[in-house]
Amino acid sequence: MSSQFGQLFRVATWGESHGGGVGVVVDGCPPGLELSEADIQRDLDRRRPGQSEIVTPRQEEDRCVILSGVFKGKTLGTPIAINVTNKDARPEAYREMETRFRPSHADFTYQAKYGVRNWEGGGRASARETIGRVAAAAVAKKALAEIAPGLEAIAYVRSIHYLEAAIDPETVTFEQVESNIVRCPDASVAAAMVELIKQVRSEGDSVGGVIECVVRGVPPGLGEPVFDKLSADLAKAMMSLPASKGFEIGSGFAGAKLKGSEHNDPFVMRDGKIRTIGNRSGGIQGGISNGEDILMRIAFKPTATLLRPQRTVSVSGEETELSARGRHDPCVLPRAVPIVEAMALLVLCDHALRQRGQCGRQGTALPQF
Amino acid sequence: MSSQFGQLFRVATWGESHGGGVGVVVDGCPPGLELSEADIQRDLDRRRPGQSEIVTPRQEEDRCVILSGVFKGKTLGTPIAINVTNKDARPEAYREMETRFRPSHADFTYQAKYGVRNWEGGGRASARETIGRVAAAAVAKKALAEIAPGLEAIAYVRSIHYLEAAIDPETVTFEQVESNIVRCPDASVAAAMVELIKQVRSEGDSVGGVIECVVRGVPPGLGEPVFDKLSADLAKAMMSLPASKGFEIGSGFAGAKLKGSEHNDPFVMRDGKIRTIGNRSGGIQGGISNGEDILMRIAFKPTATLLRPQRTVSVSGEETELSARGRHDPCVLPRAVPIVEAMALLVLCDHALRQRGQCGRQGTALPQF
Amino acid sequence: MSSQFGQLFRVATWGESHGGGVGVVVDGCPPGLELSEADIQRDLDRRRPGQSEIVTPRQEEDRCVILSGVFKGKTLGTPIAINVTNKDARPEAYREMETRFRPSHADFTYQAKYGVRNWEGGGRASARETIGRVAAAAVAKKALAEIAPGLEAIAYVRSIHYLEAAIDPETVTFEQVESNIVRCPDASVAAAMVELIKQVRSEGDSVGGVIECVVRGVPPGLGEPVFDKLSADLAKAMMSLPASKGFEIGSGFAGAKLKGSEHNDPFVMRDGKIRTIGNRSGGIQGGISNGEDILMRIAFKPTATLLRPQRTVSVSGEETELSARGRHDPCVLPRAVPIVEAMALLVLCDHALRQRGQCGRQGTALPQF
Amino acid sequence: MSSQFGQLFRVATWGESHGGGVGVVVDGCPPGLELSEADIQRDLDRRRPGQSEIVTPRQEEDRCVILSGVFKGKTLGTPIAINVTNKDARPEAYREMETRFRPSHADFTYQAKYGVRNWEGGGRASARETIGRVAAAAVAKKALAEIAPGLEAIAYVRSIHYLEAAIDPETVTFEQVESNIVRCPDASVAAAMVELIKQVRSEGDSVGGVIECVVRGVPPGLGEPVFDKLSADLAKAMMSLPASKGFEIGSGFAGAKLKGSEHNDPFVMRDGKIRTIGNRSGGIQGGISNGEDILMRIAFKPTATLLRPQRTVSVSGEETELSARGRHDPCVLPRAVPIVEAMALLVLCDHALRQRGQCGRQGTALPQF
Repeated sequence: MSSQFGQLFRVATWGESHGGGVGVVVDGCPPGLELSEADIQRDLDRRRPGQSEIVTPRQEEDRCVILSGVFKGKTLGTPIAINVTNKDARPEAYREMETRFRPSHADFTYQAKYGVRNWEGGGRASARETIGRVAAAAVAKKALAEIAPGLEAIAYVRSIHYLEAAIDPETVTFEQVESNIVRCPDASVAAAMVELIKQVRSEGDSVGGVIECVVRGVPPGLGEPVFDKLSADLAKAMMSLPASKGFEIGSGFAGAKLKGSEHNDPFVMRDGKIRTIGNRSGGIQGGISNGEDILMRIAFKPTATLLRPQRTVSVSGEETELSARGRHDPCVLPRAVPIVEAMALLVLCDHALRQRGQCGRQGTALPQF
Repeated sequence: MSSQFGQLFRVATWGESHGGGVGVVVDGCPPGLELSEADIQRDLDRRRPGQSEIVTPRQEEDRCVILSGVFKGKTLGTPIAINVTNKDARPEAYREMETRFRPSHADFTYQAKYGVRNWEGGGRASARETIGRVAAAAVAKKALAEIAPGLEAIAYVRSIHYLEAAIDPETVTFEQVESNIVRCPDASVAAAMVELIKQVRSEGDSVGGVIECVVRGVPPGLGEPVFDKLSADLAKAMMSLPASKGFEIGSGFAGAKLKGSEHNDPFVMRDGKIRTIGNRSGGIQGGISNGEDILMRIAFKPTATLLRPQRTVSVSGEETELSARGRHDPCVLPRAVPIVEAMALLVLCDHALRQRGQCGRQGTALPQF
Repeated sequence: MSSQFGQLFRVATWGESHGGGVGVVVDGCPPGLELSEADIQRDLDRRRPGQSEIVTPRQEEDRCVILSGVFKGKTLGTPIAINVTNKDARPEAYREMETRFRPSHADFTYQAKYGVRNWEGGGRASARETIGRVAAAAVAKKALAEIAPGLEAIAYVRSIHYLEAAIDPETVTFEQVESNIVRCPDASVAAAMVELIKQVRSEGDSVGGVIECVVRGVPPGLGEPVFDKLSADLAKAMMSLPASKGFEIGSGFAGAKLKGSEHNDPFVMRDGKIRTIGNRSGGIQGGISNGEDILMRIAFKPTATLLRPQRTVSVSGEETELSARGRHDPCVLPRAVPIVEAMALLVLCDHALRQRGQCGRQGTALPQF
Repeated sequence: MSSQFGQLFRVATWGESHGGGVGVVVDGCPPGLELSEADIQRDLDRRRPGQSEIVTPRQEEDRCVILSGVFKGKTLGTPIAINVTNKDARPEAYREMETRFRPSHADFTYQAKYGVRNWEGGGRASARETIGRVAAAAVAKKALAEIAPGLEAIAYVRSIHYLEAAIDPETVTFEQVESNIVRCPDASVAAAMVELIKQVRSEGDSVGGVIECVVRGVPPGLGEPVFDKLSADLAKAMMSLPASKGFEIGSGFAGAKLKGSEHNDPFVMRDGKIRTIGNRSGGIQGGISNGEDILMRIAFKPTATLLRPQRTVSVSGEETELSARGRHDPCVLPRAVPIVEAMALLVLCDHALRQRGQCGRQGTALPQF
């Protein structure tokens, strides 16, 4: 059940990078929502390989098919199965992985855990697994449009290697993010990032970076103490992504260097609503949304698979070398942007339904009392 | 169900800071383990208030009572209920909180979510809630001693405000951690930390910092892709703690600045086992433990409750000021150390049982193949 | 996690018949409901031992204490812990059970499963375990009064041994049920039942019977296909009760002997609502409530513990005899009536919250469209 | 999440009778099991339509495809997606159902719950939904062969309408069950059942009956008190099947008419094991398997869809008549036999894994101590 996520809005993903395909079953979706394959395809296209010169050249159209749960264009309230077929799998490029473990990849640990693994590609550890997440989040977006209208999640590349962009999360737009292939809304830094990625790829190397995600229009009251705090569920969501190494919310690690008198966000009245000055809380206090923007950052390590020789051992325990072939992203961040948004939406949709279940308030009507 | 944690080893905590008490029910514990109240008390004593001059002076003995699930000194396999009575509650110190929201505390968000809140103390948002977690983890420790002998979790204060300690996670000992009241095993920095905490308290202010936690002796194979990755569940566990703002594993945010060729941990053979050179993975690859030390860091913000006037609003929407009375920690980190360890143990115990369930291997026998 | 029940309205029970006590933690309860210990005590008194001459003479007041989750008389939305202390435990009466298995009781299977058991009383297999269920259901009743006003569950003894009562489930009242100690609203048959129970007790024997439960005022739309059908969750709820051997809904086993043309419940319009003629469906169609009365029957076997010699084996595998002492119910049904009601309420409350979560309709407003 | 079943061995089914297809995702399967589509097809063929002259003539081959989770013929431990395409859907035969509710079917309740429904066929309420269950159970069978070797579940038709067969559950074989199209191992009664079914079909009517299921070779110790008793989970499993109205285990409703001295199963030593004389417990005591045969009976009502006029109302609330066209089973029992077996296997596989997780014993080694 570890490929399932969410309590009321529950997604179950399946599929390997090299196999029959990948997909997701979304259970618990509110009924009566308009939903088409086009709604889902839009987001899948943002994560698909081959979309630009700085990502893996694997050619996958990632066309989705809705197999159930939608009738005459509306969700039925019953499970929505969405499938995507793998078309351009080239397992022969992974032949060496049958007997050698890629350093810092999941080859060894899958073998240690299961005693068996799909070595033709990364199996479930491939980023291809995230297709199901993105497809499910397109459904979540539809549900949120009804339960919490106005809510939007925007992610973007904040930094790659030592290149750090200047971005105002309060005002950044989807169009700005999509205006360049690296998905960094700071145009000049974005250009440098593209150059850097091309450079490291030519060296058979890879780079990491940080993605920031802002969620605006969140009604107060989402998140459930004490374990299912909104911040905790977002952390789990993001740290379940391939290559993620860190998660921050609001002030994050920098906040640990402030005093309480500097860190606290004073409450004020604004437009008849209780709001805060400053947002070091990152939109969440005590694990519950307070109506301010949710702001988080996720650190991604450099891609583990390198097109240069690396020291490793074989499955029979002999020290050896491995140089990957295959097609890989020299930097996962540009394609991870829609995936980060997807995970944020899955968490928020689940909590919005849970809030309605326990407390009975519609998102639109959530009172500031 | 949001006060429940774990799949097979499931804990359900309850209780408010000012009320009848706090406690936990542990369900799914392996039978036949020796367990006494003394086993649990040892860990509770490390987190209890009033233990030193730098924590809240609230006088609570936090004596635990096991009410069920243990017979003739052994666990029965059925639910273990553990209760701790609140003795030194002083709700009168919270009178102002009935009508005013503490900035950056959970007063406002609980009210927004539930339309009602226990304003006599922090309710469920109080760190007092973590007693149940620590008690449950003492049980988890017993289970792990059988399933994964040799596994140990050690947390310690890595930094407070700008004071950063130098500590070797591979060799740090429990005794070193407990050798001073701030729980920082770097003696000279620890002394400075104590002074700093006293200083900020005298100013009615507070400070935050970073706790590091190492888990040694973890068998390879724990953690379940794709959503219940060990790293993801640890992130959720830590981000569910009061005042946490960030989580890192292995290289963390710093890893995002490395190239793949610098970041990867090459595999080598050591003592007949597959091991890595370096541990930027932090003991987890693809969400599954690889047998190296698990290493993580958690950022804690400065305590929100300040003994000095702060700007805020009242429940009726008027701008006002609030100056806390009550007894509060000027820095949560010294007492958070055992809580961080507790969360690590809860996650590992749950995953060790899940691994045994699905894959049928005993922790001790987990092969390096 | 097997002592937990429900998805959104989740109860976690704990405790053994002879130990510190028994209790429950209710998580996910809607906030703002008025709740006092008196609300809970009313139902506990109906199930407590020593209440009449035909039940076990064990003297337990079963006074409940609410330890958390309620503040100034209202539920907080956070976990509600309810404890009951065991007062009249007499473990010495169970000395033989340490070494001999009671036939058809759970002694052997607990030992086989866990390798250890609490032989001082029935441990978790004792009907005493159901105190937590009844207490939790008193909370569920409060929640349902708000979400699905008008809903009421009434259980009663339908038959004991060969004595079968004539009762109209559409009109039977709580007062009729409570009008006699056997809780059978057919007065003349009730009297015979009392005599029968006294008779079998005098013989050191026991009897079983059937409890019927009707739930009236259920809004249409509760229950979730395909696995969490309302009928399936009710079946699980009832078959989780000690001594239950069978479950029927609507026409039940008798329905298997009808033809479709006889069995179907035709739809008609009545008072502007879509209703059925006949109710062989028992208020549930396709696993979802249709607004008609839910009607179910549960078979209970005769009490396993007998005050006469029975053939059995010892823990060391020797054939022997066992004659129970201790205090036992010669017939569990009179006390099982409130427990059956409790399970029905727990299921319905959980599904009412789930329906509100997914479909967003308030119980009161559930349209007949 | 209501289309998901099981805790450790979790299945998620999807699909409607008239749509893109049906399928299942199996999560938590032990790794390293040999599994092919042929293993699954065998069981699907037993439930498919058009298999004989007494079932629906809908022509579906129900060819399954494994899309993930299996590599080089072995399970990977990750989700196994199995799809079956609908080929012979004829939605036009359901045109009347768009506006009229079939009596005692799920048309009305789905509309009441979701406000929308797939009226082209029964949607999720169709027995076609059970394909995913049967496919998943074929996987469970493989897992059980390793964890609990020797375990086998055999179901068969016990009665149809008033025709009752004489069958010895201890000795009945799979071959006997499959020896005739009605799946009743009592040959002479089976022949009468076939005639009866043909007769009622010719009248546009339908019949119900009772299926009995025996599970042999169950190791002692499976099932978890107090809510997840093996009997409770089996009851839920069976009552989640379309058309089921009742569930009995062991002595069932008849047991309610016995005295304790008649009902109890005395323990004896047999072949060095602790066994019982008689099996009124039905192989389960206190919710835990005791090693004897598990024996249960499930009542199925007559098919609701009739090929003759029935009184009903329209979606707009007008009283009217409805006469079904479409292709329907005049008696669901022959095809329900493999489905009942499937549900039994799903429950037992889940509990076998849970037992191994919590108590660490291999099924084969489960000691009689």
